[in-house]
Amino acid sequence: MAFTLDVTSMTEPVVGAGVPAAEWPTLAARFREAHAAVAGIAATGVYGYRELEAQADERARVTTFAAGVQGQYDDIVVLGIGGSSLGAMALRTALLPAAWNARTDAQRGGRARLHVLDNVDPRTIAGVLSIVTLPRTLFVVISKSGGTIETLAQYLVVRARLDGDGLEAARHLAFVTDPAKGALRVIAARDGIPVFAVPPNVGGRFSVLSPVGLLPAALCGIDVEGLCAGATVMRDATMGDDLEHNAAGLFATLQWRAHERAGQGLHVMMPYSDALRDLAPWFVQLWAESLGKINRDGTHVGPTPIASVGATDQHSQVQLFMEGPADKTVTFLRVDAAADDVEIPRLESGEPALAFLGGHTLGELLDVECRATASALARAGRPSMTMTVGASDAWHVGGLMMWFMQATTLAGALYRVDPLDQPGVELGKRLANKDLGHPNFLSEAKGTLPQDAAIPHRRLRVG
Amino acid sequence: MAFTLDVTSMTEPVVGAGVPAAEWPTLAARFREAHAAVAGIAATGVYGYRELEAQADERARVTTFAAGVQGQYDDIVVLGIGGSSLGAMALRTALLPAAWNARTDAQRGGRARLHVLDNVDPRTIAGVLSIVTLPRTLFVVISKSGGTIETLAQYLVVRARLDGDGLEAARHLAFVTDPAKGALRVIAARDGIPVFAVPPNVGGRFSVLSPVGLLPAALCGIDVEGLCAGATVMRDATMGDDLEHNAAGLFATLQWRAHERAGQGLHVMMPYSDALRDLAPWFVQLWAESLGKINRDGTHVGPTPIASVGATDQHSQVQLFMEGPADKTVTFLRVDAAADDVEIPRLESGEPALAFLGGHTLGELLDVECRATASALARAGRPSMTMTVGASDAWHVGGLMMWFMQATTLAGALYRVDPLDQPGVELGKRLANKDLGHPNFLSEAKGTLPQDAAIPHRRLRVG
Repeated sequence: MAFTLDVTSMTEPVVGAGVPAAEWPTLAARFREAHAAVAGIAATGVYGYRELEAQADERARVTTFAAGVQGQYDDIVVLGIGGSSLGAMALRTALLPAAWNARTDAQRGGRARLHVLDNVDPRTIAGVLSIVTLPRTLFVVISKSGGTIETLAQYLVVRARLDGDGLEAARHLAFVTDPAKGALRVIAARDGIPVFAVPPNVGGRFSVLSPVGLLPAALCGIDVEGLCAGATVMRDATMGDDLEHNAAGLFATLQWRAHERAGQGLHVMMPYSDALRDLAPWFVQLWAESLGKINRDGTHVGPTPIASVGATDQHSQVQLFMEGPADKTVTFLRVDAAADDVEIPRLESGEPALAFLGGHTLGELLDVECRATASALARAGRPSMTMTVGASDAWHVGGLMMWFMQATTLAGALYRVDPLDQPGVELGKRLANKDLGHPNFLSEAKGTLPQDAAIPHRRLRVG
Repeated sequence: MAFTLDVTSMTEPVVGAGVPAAEWPTLAARFREAHAAVAGIAATGVYGYRELEAQADERARVTTFAAGVQGQYDDIVVLGIGGSSLGAMALRTALLPAAWNARTDAQRGGRARLHVLDNVDPRTIAGVLSIVTLPRTLFVVISKSGGTIETLAQYLVVRARLDGDGLEAARHLAFVTDPAKGALRVIAARDGIPVFAVPPNVGGRFSVLSPVGLLPAALCGIDVEGLCAGATVMRDATMGDDLEHNAAGLFATLQWRAHERAGQGLHVMMPYSDALRDLAPWFVQLWAESLGKINRDGTHVGPTPIASVGATDQHSQVQLFMEGPADKTVTFLRVDAAADDVEIPRLESGEPALAFLGGHTLGELLDVECRATASALARAGRPSMTMTVGASDAWHVGGLMMWFMQATTLAGALYRVDPLDQPGVELGKRLANKDLGHPNFLSEAKGTLPQDAAIPHRRLRVG
């Protein structure tokens, strides 16, 4: 039960633009400054993702509810987008066996499948609705504000189906939303729909350890207390202001420093593990939406996170990482020992291209490739870090998620932005709401949207 | 049946760093130069991905084989990585109904599920092997060289299972590999395993329209002739040297120009369509591995492609695209009219946050959001293009893939690189092979690998 972060390949002399020994005191001081800024803001109570003890009651409601409905549903369908879906998807991939939704009821040991509808594409929604048995399905509607139009549109489609089939809303819907306000609260109260609270001080992309991620997980039998226990250990280990002993601070500071001093602002997240692969897109949202904005000096800042997966991407993006512009760092996530490793059989002894593989294991092969890629990158002068976890179980996955959230908060201070807001998506929302005739947004937007200029359109048609 | 590329938002005055009217002649001349370079190289016969007519016989073998085994298999399992897997995954998502592998045999109309094992993680392979019925499963082993260690390791695991169960290799394996050489050819000849050829002049990431992509597709009932028909139309429309009439040239030239002149080297691919979402990672490999390398002037060049999906990523990466550094272009892929749109029911009339949605359709919502995001980006000075296709059917998907492949070839000439090689991944391969005791690689590598320097390791342990 441990995490080990190795940052050797972010330093000189391993990589040319890495941290020279003499620079560590400066970085440590800069980190202490950022840490102090975060501590000041933390005192205002905005970092609710860390308050796992305060959320114990709501967590208990989640586990009690999940235990109470066990065996009632074959399918759990999450209606949610962004922060309301990426966490559940990462947990599903990490903590349920491979190809979960392709398994029969018996192959799943009677536990439910988990579908996450993270988009409003009619094909996907109609497709999923056509394969589930409604009387055996629970729809979990997740919107912190209760006003996310994609999720509400999905809810309306689902609600009409349930009503049409004469199925009781209170038995086939569960909501996760603000504790006091929003349309979902009103509907839940009216119809007796079970509802779970996202604490007001927990934003969407920081909400995976709230009912947003935990309710879908618990409904499929994932150990949510294990998740939170690992997260608590990681949180406690990443509260200090000493760079040398704070793994989240070290990650944040080295990424920021690579961007600031070496122009390495593209941050690749590369798990060498199928279980951990969906942590990458979850991290992408966290890092991109928290840090990509106009900072306190009025500058457009923010790293660009890139999701990747090993060994697969050795046959895709690694060519670019090795020989393209030197503008990237790579963070490897590796698992210390595969729990159920598979030996490669000694067959085809007459074929040299195959014979040497026999007797190795697949886990060994994956790990050899991870180390080889890290080594090749270093020899090409490209920086990387490696985070090793003891296992891909709930405890470690919770810890990894907390590590990233803590790092993001600290990186916000280093980049001089508020990691909790997302002002850049408002204009798009307003334009969409205007087109759809949303009553409030229409009037709010009045006069503030510039007219399309009379510009020459350039279009090319084929076929 | 048509494609429309709108590049208005790559131009001035829509976006500040866009193409001013006066620059078009320069760009057209630069494109003619690149086109001439490509034409010169094309004469040597290396661009086999275009030679769809020459591949008609092998394609007919694929469709005949697929028709002949129809009904024999419940599960098709592809063993392949990178260029041998991304195409099949993109085709599965685009051209089979949603949640395909979660469907029962009846829900799939008797057609087979399609699993793609694109990694050597033991958990995934063991998981998939535990849920398929071996006597009803066909394993398609894809390696152009016949020497891809990940794929060969998977093959050995699968082969031992088949042998152990007394199942005939010739009935449960099919190979896709080089027409004449490599270990898979030898094994196929020995055991009577059906084998299909990847033309020698078709590289992995350009191979989706060869048996590499077409065999898995055909086995699941996808219309491979439709794919190739759309691709042929697109190819013929993108052979000319007139920038104003070559959609692939326009895409390549505008992306290259944005990188070269405006520092916009991060190229986001953002389908607003769940069907087309896996075209993005397929494009990422194509663009990254083809263009990210040391160019003829000895410079590290290449754009960084980024996979995204709308409307989902409005709640993730779009904040960064809007307000982060102005280093990105966004390419939207949209579908003209959703074939099976879903109306949003008029319910919850008492809740303003929901009531206004009733009567719209989900397809309309998705499309409104696409246009709103493009518009918001333009208003923030961020460039984008929009490619609209008539439908997400085989014909258009084939056309889109050919569009991207043609654009990549042309972009190679603009970036002054060979888009067909991948020298940067050799070192990592050699290091891995050395660790695994590969006989040839061990001796080849002798003396050429620098020793690890005696460097101070920096590790931090938590837990």
